[in-house]
Amino acid sequence: MKILIIGANGTIGKAVTRSLEAKNEIIKVGKTSGDLQVDISDSTSIEKMFENSGKVDAIVCIAGDAKWDKFDNLSEEDFYVGIKSKLMGQVNLVRIGRKYLNSNGSFTLTTGILADHPVDKTTSAAMVNGGIHSFVQAAALELENGLRINAISADLVEDAKDKYEDYFPGHTPVPMVKVADGYKKSILGKLNGEIIRILA
Amino acid sequence: MKILIIGANGTIGKAVTRSLEAKNEIIKVGKTSGDLQVDISDSTSIEKMFENSGKVDAIVCIAGDAKWDKFDNLSEEDFYVGIKSKLMGQVNLVRIGRKYLNSNGSFTLTTGILADHPVDKTTSAAMVNGGIHSFVQAAALELENGLRINAISADLVEDAKDKYEDYFPGHTPVPMVKVADGYKKSILGKLNGEIIRILA
Repeated sequence: MKILIIGANGTIGKAVTRSLEAKNEIIKVGKTSGDLQVDISDSTSIEKMFENSGKVDAIVCIAGDAKWDKFDNLSEEDFYVGIKSKLMGQVNLVRIGRKYLNSNGSFTLTTGILADHPVDKTTSAAMVNGGIHSFVQAAALELENGLRINAISADLVEDAKDKYEDYFPGHTPVPMVKVADGYKKSILGKLNGEIIRILA
Repeated sequence: MKILIIGANGTIGKAVTRSLEAKNEIIKVGKTSGDLQVDISDSTSIEKMFENSGKVDAIVCIAGDAKWDKFDNLSEEDFYVGIKSKLMGQVNLVRIGRKYLNSNGSFTLTTGILADHPVDKTTSAAMVNGGIHSFVQAAALELENGLRINAISADLVEDAKDKYEDYFPGHTPVPMVKVADGYKKSILGKLNGEIIRILA
């Protein structure tokens, strides 16, 4: 199977790539690294990436930013960082990527625990995750040619523990193999329109 | 209690206003009608509305647009209609409205069944509703001075049956009194950070 992974060099992307590369052809995409480059907040950049990749069997997005800060500090523009990147970046990947997916291909988007269980400083990050959850369920109703779409929503992941544990008091880190298995479930399985929640 | 209702003249707004006006002072706000006018997609207009209303005990938003169409037909710009209006319009109401709420005051935002159970043509509308659900939960963690925030998510409402029933096959319309009670629960009760789901 030909799998395009955006964010292949990130914390989760590395684990997902590792778990799939033995039996599949992986096109690694990064902002600056990888086989191809993309800025998902820019539709033109997304279009260009797909022109270079050609058709694939699975499009996986493990990328997208949002601004983390106290609600008091977040300006309207700060909210648009997450809207343009993690929210509309992923929506545009699906909008544009549909014509680059082979029949029965799949989209796997990435959200996170914040959609259901936000923590301090995540009014913007939670919002974009929640938006993607509902988008995925709605898009699944309309995709054709056997195309599928799911979102992976993991709790704090083990390899990001040092960086994020202070933001997530009491969240038990999820082993990376369990996170990667969530992506496998979406890419290689038959699920459609699901939010695949991964807890420790 | 002094209650500011944005969208007081809409289908749901009328029912909510009716159920509250006997025992409370209502400031009715509309796009073109009412005691005050606001365009919630414009922060400057929101700021001006609050300067005119002064401090209140409850801010209720039953307004906000999003574009309904087949996913195939929705452009990137079409998604931004809902983002600017129903999504960021409501976020900005909270951002700006905080300083116009008396202690222990409340925000009541409006989403809808699509966040959890989208139907055909609602990739954009579902997305903005889902975003608000997560935003409300996140904002509740940070509001101070006893301020509360909730969202009301009703199924197809009785008074919108004729207009929307073809979009919602098999959805049993919710009686308006039940919808209005949901808003009362948020405004007059003690709930905080809740998504108040209202089904028939």
